[in-house]
Amino acid sequence: MTATGFSQTYVNINGELFSPERLSEAKISVFDRGLLYGDSIYEVTCTYEKILFKWEEHLDRLFSSAEGLSLPINYSRKELTELAYQTLGPLNVGEAYLRLVITRGEGPLSLSFGERPLQNNVIVITKPLPPNPDWWYSKGVHMIIAQTLRTPKESFDPNIKSGNYLNNVMAHHEAMKAQAYDAIMLNRQGHVTEGTTSNVWMVKDGNILTPPLGAGILGGITRQTLFELGREKKLKMREANFTPDELLAADEVFITSTTRQVVPVTQIDQTPIGSEGKPGPTTLKLLRFYQEHVREVIENAKKKAPHT
Amino acid sequence: MTATGFSQTYVNINGELFSPERLSEAKISVFDRGLLYGDSIYEVTCTYEKILFKWEEHLDRLFSSAEGLSLPINYSRKELTELAYQTLGPLNVGEAYLRLVITRGEGPLSLSFGERPLQNNVIVITKPLPPNPDWWYSKGVHMIIAQTLRTPKESFDPNIKSGNYLNNVMAHHEAMKAQAYDAIMLNRQGHVTEGTTSNVWMVKDGNILTPPLGAGILGGITRQTLFELGREKKLKMREANFTPDELLAADEVFITSTTRQVVPVTQIDQTPIGSEGKPGPTTLKLLRFYQEHVREVIENAKKKAPHT
Repeated sequence: MTATGFSQTYVNINGELFSPERLSEAKISVFDRGLLYGDSIYEVTCTYEKILFKWEEHLDRLFSSAEGLSLPINYSRKELTELAYQTLGPLNVGEAYLRLVITRGEGPLSLSFGERPLQNNVIVITKPLPPNPDWWYSKGVHMIIAQTLRTPKESFDPNIKSGNYLNNVMAHHEAMKAQAYDAIMLNRQGHVTEGTTSNVWMVKDGNILTPPLGAGILGGITRQTLFELGREKKLKMREANFTPDELLAADEVFITSTTRQVVPVTQIDQTPIGSEGKPGPTTLKLLRFYQEHVREVIENAKKKAPHT
Repeated sequence: MTATGFSQTYVNINGELFSPERLSEAKISVFDRGLLYGDSIYEVTCTYEKILFKWEEHLDRLFSSAEGLSLPINYSRKELTELAYQTLGPLNVGEAYLRLVITRGEGPLSLSFGERPLQNNVIVITKPLPPNPDWWYSKGVHMIIAQTLRTPKESFDPNIKSGNYLNNVMAHHEAMKAQAYDAIMLNRQGHVTEGTTSNVWMVKDGNILTPPLGAGILGGITRQTLFELGREKKLKMREANFTPDELLAADEVFITSTTRQVVPVTQIDQTPIGSEGKPGPTTLKLLRFYQEHVREVIENAKKKAPHT
């Protein structure tokens, strides 16, 4: 890897660790189906105080993605957990980004993946997770509504987290061209689905809405967590389809993702959101609930099974 | 590469040639966007008498795919042609398979591909092309209609030949489970689009029909060639949308692809095609026209610019 900014990145390929000095050797075969067809699955999560956050939930989703692709995983949950912590150990930071990629493996140049399982390639990448910037919470981010529609479930289920990401890459590219932070994607019914790597929420008249899985989205783990947290606090959390017009008329809009938690959205296309175009009180309250939950989960995890 | 069957395969990565003995070293970085996101484009063609067939047309399509993805190619057509022949030379067979993959390059773990072009990874893979089996022409192949719908243009244009192939992989997997040769994919309008790696044609009452680009297909080079050849021979070649029911009621069905030329389809799901369930006369006539055309193109190329 010749690009800069990788001085603290570690890679693990099938159990072999590559330190930052050896990243240029961290390679996989050109016959890997992950490269040839995007035939792979992945998860991204982060650590707090060196503990992987909601790791079991990420493993659940990983195995669910694998099932959706009829992609056998030759590794147990325990082995994957060990690979993850082996790649985090030498990084030695409290808050880390972790990406786990599992490809179907190497095979002949054919769409067929045959009856006998191939040998997976398992890649873990870790690096320090920078703190989320303060301006996200004081000003919020600007998004666009992408022209690129989210791939429909009937073609490829967005709830499978796979190596086929060009649909999202191209929507994100629209946002880059518009100098926005990211793009919100619609489905063919004209409803909001998700951001390119986040779930989307709107607050209207005290209701806190996020699109249902049926809209064609990835079931975000932060989405699920926040939904349950809000319910516990007696907030009106609802799954509901909504249109871009309804989104633009919302009192507040925010996005969620594992590494970014809760991020206020204060402008969509050219329209400021809410009366002030500033992060709204409900969004900031939910962020606080979420961060309290993170601390609680990590404190409990430290008591139970210290990994460090 | 540990799999068997690669004894005659050559790989070229950015100009470095890997002979069959060194294939296990033919690797690319785990930070390559082709692996992370399927962010790559590719072409497959073949040689006859060591000459790349319709290479200029394949390069045209490659650059068109690149444009569709805003993916800069740091190589000229001449350089790509040289890489192709460098990888064919040591293979030293008349009829070879050639795959050219160009990834956007290596970058940080972000959907953004930035304003400055990355350095592409260019991969060429060559191997002997086995002759098409005789039974294709005596018995024809069996296909299914896939439940998986072809990705719509509004999400990702099937006319971009990219490293996002899971839509097709999963349709092909349906065919494998049904012990069929391959799958025919429909669009959301209920019209036939294409096979997972081929174009689809039907013959009915003397008309020879294939879906238009608007159906959401890859513009096949063999499709285009055959269309023009048929027109020259005064056959009624037409682009038209048709349904699976119309396909099942056709007099003949066949598929086309660069490496497989023209392949008769004699059964779809449980329905035999035509009155006999055997390769039809129009299909076999078109195959003959196509093979005559191949010979003519290669003879002309040999006169002009011998590459061997």
